[in-house]
Amino acid sequence: MSETAVPDSLSRLAATIAARRGADPAASYVARLNAKGLPKIAQKLGEEATEAVIAALVGTPEELVGEAADLLFHLLVLLDHKGVPLADVLAELTRREGVSGIAEKASRNF
Amino acid sequence: MSETAVPDSLSRLAATIAARRGADPAASYVARLNAKGLPKIAQKLGEEATEAVIAALVGTPEELVGEAADLLFHLLVLLDHKGVPLADVLAELTRREGVSGIAEKASRNF
Amino acid sequence: MSETAVPDSLSRLAATIAARRGADPAASYVARLNAKGLPKIAQKLGEEATEAVIAALVGTPEELVGEAADLLFHLLVLLDHKGVPLADVLAELTRREGVSGIAEKASRNF
Amino acid sequence: MSETAVPDSLSRLAATIAARRGADPAASYVARLNAKGLPKIAQKLGEEATEAVIAALVGTPEELVGEAADLLFHLLVLLDHKGVPLADVLAELTRREGVSGIAEKASRNF
Repeated sequence: MSETAVPDSLSRLAATIAARRGADPAASYVARLNAKGLPKIAQKLGEEATEAVIAALVGTPEELVGEAADLLFHLLVLLDHKGVPLADVLAELTRREGVSGIAEKASRNF
Repeated sequence: MSETAVPDSLSRLAATIAARRGADPAASYVARLNAKGLPKIAQKLGEEATEAVIAALVGTPEELVGEAADLLFHLLVLLDHKGVPLADVLAELTRREGVSGIAEKASRNF
Repeated sequence: MSETAVPDSLSRLAATIAARRGADPAASYVARLNAKGLPKIAQKLGEEATEAVIAALVGTPEELVGEAADLLFHLLVLLDHKGVPLADVLAELTRREGVSGIAEKASRNF
Repeated sequence: MSETAVPDSLSRLAATIAARRGADPAASYVARLNAKGLPKIAQKLGEEATEAVIAALVGTPEELVGEAADLLFHLLVLLDHKGVPLADVLAELTRREGVSGIAEKASRNF
């Protein structure tokens, strides 16, 4: 799925999250979120999205960087908890970009 | 910021989005979003986050892949619109992961 | 539950929504939402909340009035679809207010 | 704006919130929220909406009652903080319902 031999930083983070999923909840935030279950993880994603929206509208660039990082992090935790590979999401984005760039420009042109 | 010579798929998509920002709104969804302005882009991010939450709770894996892709895509459009480099967000995630893995395990351990 | 003989405007709207739930989807927005099902109704609630957040931060008072009305309306549709009476929600608010005002001031004081 | 001499429970709660806006933050949750400012109040609204969505999809009726109450409460705090009367929002809902029920059925029929 990836074009590079060396994994990118997001894929490396996804691997770290997968490795910590079953760790001791006392020692790992990822393990704590997984122990709380899917509704709590989904709630965190929603919260971080709201915070990113607010940072974009009235915050500093640094705040937006922090909230975007929080949002990405919790999206990776959610995907991992659901057993959905990040690679599938990136492949879907690449597929859409290809479609958009070449043929179906009228339907869903990026 | 990146560890690889070849850009990863998300960074490539961010570059595509930056290139289309000023395109003809009639021919580009990214250009249309930018023409509508920040509140509309932020609104789309919030909507896609809600849809990802719902797909995670009651949807299929394929639906979650689609909604996660939508969420990532609109996050990239928002960062680009605000002039915040994706590389800064990925660097923040890498920084936190390093801090978490080495020293400040107690404070914000992943 | 209600202190008044004449129903307030929100309770009247809730009754209207209940009456239209099973109407012809071609003739009623409430019926169309119900025909689409719970995930779609929940999605609308999330979207309207995001729009209310954005209107509060960067919109006009008139826009906030409109978005708050949208949010309330879709909350009523969601409650009705789930068979949860608005009166139960208002009673819970009144209960909390009473608790807050009299005894448990330290725990959840409004 | 109201059709009843006795205020309904939501309007009474709005009055309570307005009365506590400037109270001692140590003694009032409403005062604490107001002291934190608009972005924090808006964030709470977004969070409660996400929790209501999740309760509607995978929670119990009691959980939905609690989350809907939280959402209404924080919407009232937000309106009060912005100086937008709840009565204006209820009037807008009543106006739409009248429009929907009488004349503009085709355009925005409830």
